[in-house]
Amino acid sequence: MANNNYVAIMAGGVGSRFWPASTENRPKQFLDILGVGKSLIRLTYERFLKIVPNENILIVTNKVYKAQVAEHLPELPLENILCEPSRNNTAPCVAYTAMRLRAMNENAVFVTAPSDHVILKEDAFLEKIQTAFEVAGKNDVLLTLGITPTRPDTGYGYIRYEAAEGEVKKVRQFTEKPDLETAKSFLASGDYLWNAGIFVWSAKSILASFGKNAPEIVEILEAGKDAYNTPDEQAFVDEAYPRTPSISVDYAIMEKAQNVHTIPSDIGWSDLGTWGSLYAFRDKDETSNVADGKIVIQDTTNSLIRGNKDKLTIVRGLDDYIIVDEDNALLIYPKSAEQEIKKLVKQLKDQ
Amino acid sequence: MANNNYVAIMAGGVGSRFWPASTENRPKQFLDILGVGKSLIRLTYERFLKIVPNENILIVTNKVYKAQVAEHLPELPLENILCEPSRNNTAPCVAYTAMRLRAMNENAVFVTAPSDHVILKEDAFLEKIQTAFEVAGKNDVLLTLGITPTRPDTGYGYIRYEAAEGEVKKVRQFTEKPDLETAKSFLASGDYLWNAGIFVWSAKSILASFGKNAPEIVEILEAGKDAYNTPDEQAFVDEAYPRTPSISVDYAIMEKAQNVHTIPSDIGWSDLGTWGSLYAFRDKDETSNVADGKIVIQDTTNSLIRGNKDKLTIVRGLDDYIIVDEDNALLIYPKSAEQEIKKLVKQLKDQ
Repeated sequence: MANNNYVAIMAGGVGSRFWPASTENRPKQFLDILGVGKSLIRLTYERFLKIVPNENILIVTNKVYKAQVAEHLPELPLENILCEPSRNNTAPCVAYTAMRLRAMNENAVFVTAPSDHVILKEDAFLEKIQTAFEVAGKNDVLLTLGITPTRPDTGYGYIRYEAAEGEVKKVRQFTEKPDLETAKSFLASGDYLWNAGIFVWSAKSILASFGKNAPEIVEILEAGKDAYNTPDEQAFVDEAYPRTPSISVDYAIMEKAQNVHTIPSDIGWSDLGTWGSLYAFRDKDETSNVADGKIVIQDTTNSLIRGNKDKLTIVRGLDDYIIVDEDNALLIYPKSAEQEIKKLVKQLKDQ
Repeated sequence: MANNNYVAIMAGGVGSRFWPASTENRPKQFLDILGVGKSLIRLTYERFLKIVPNENILIVTNKVYKAQVAEHLPELPLENILCEPSRNNTAPCVAYTAMRLRAMNENAVFVTAPSDHVILKEDAFLEKIQTAFEVAGKNDVLLTLGITPTRPDTGYGYIRYEAAEGEVKKVRQFTEKPDLETAKSFLASGDYLWNAGIFVWSAKSILASFGKNAPEIVEILEAGKDAYNTPDEQAFVDEAYPRTPSISVDYAIMEKAQNVHTIPSDIGWSDLGTWGSLYAFRDKDETSNVADGKIVIQDTTNSLIRGNKDKLTIVRGLDDYIIVDEDNALLIYPKSAEQEIKKLVKQLKDQ
């Protein structure tokens, strides 16, 4: 019996928020940001390998990262790395993936998941994905995993769902990054979930929804119907893909489609969006520091210290700091001011 | 007329107090510690070139630093680099230098000076040295430059001199590193100077004093009398020098000899002994920071920031810090605790 279940891992992001560890040449997904000896993309890939065979995993990335993907996932067939020639946000990316999978297997059902998030409760996560595969294989629905919120975070999108029996709930509404009061009311109401950008659908259903809600994307990419999954695919994509509109799948599809459902999931998820979120996520030492590398710490607390490899780092007398020492830059910054890092780096680049 | 005036620049020190910028492989004298584009040894050499010809300058260093000396002073004849095979402190070093110079010119008068100090008032300094050359060329005296003290520093040695007419004063007593009360009384009395380790004497006078006060050193090094200033010199020194006692010229000669004189000198001198002394010495920016490199400073004051070359350094929210980023180590340390750095580095090495 053919295995109709596939995974598409999205790995084209530039991860500008983890500067200076992440750079455009080496975005976050390729970093061992957790200090476990494996990059985030490797951890994501190994997680999905437990429920789908190697040949059913696709990586969708920008052309410039193809070699890095191959280096981090050497056992993945090279043809499973889909290369975007331009950055056009997630909607064209999902449509392209769906067309490639339809060409491989017209009954394909697939997960679309980020390559740079972390999931602590792996068993719970994989169970939810299995459920989603089954539901999406049998029904014309678009599924998004909804994360049980643990705090009134104002940096995430929220999903409001309809109370109902069973694991799968109909989505009523998406709300992007609410203010704090709104986020608190969402949390109190109990019928909101975080939108983690982890989707499950059949190729048929998502392409039908694209046809209805974003026909301009389908029109451009459908022209290469006969090229997908053949040696001609890359040449077609190189020519056509940059002409698609740059738009997110949330905006193009999810907020418009009527058949969107969610599966509430308590899976220990973090998008690791900032140094502060990484600090919050990691285990601390007895003085509440997270230190990676050859570090000597004196009289220092609540800090995230990421030393340069093979280099001795000595830190004394700091509280609540981020210290990141990379070959291209050294950052010594209060954790409480980290939202200014991205702005500052942009200013410096623009100079 | 032969030029009898010579300079011997001492460049064998390991400068462990400027860690991590200075290391045993690259001690302080080879660093551009002032951020002017030239190493301290280069600055010292160029200073003396204004009053003695190139061929009359010797560098006395450890064998392992010979190549670095030649690299920093490419116009210096290679035979002017005297190489100690072992670290035996300054007395054997001065005796060896004097014997080499005597072999070159029996009327040699020479300065012995550290390679890693800084002198702001160069004209005043060179005038004092000229005076010292004249006095030491005509009299059997041992001269040491005495620095007019500007603060009750407890890290320096003090010279007490006898009030007298003229520029040259007889030395009554040397006192090593006094406590603060004593240092204050020295400063108030007006007849104390700092001992900077800058000496002037004739080869004849200093060797006569060695014969009287440190005969064991003369006995060992005098055996090579016929080898000095010949191709056999290094082989002799390699064999004999390590057998000399390790002792400072201050202790072996200056504290015992009866013909020690000093020339009070106001020359803007600093031995640059610590990061703090470098900070004190350097010009500050409008927020009282000293920053070398490509540095972005926010809300940071009274700090010394030495960035790694070609690397961006971003520092925010610190006061009174030393930040030194070298390839082998990164130091982030309160300036007020800098005396602990040396101890800490020693502990780490001993592990």
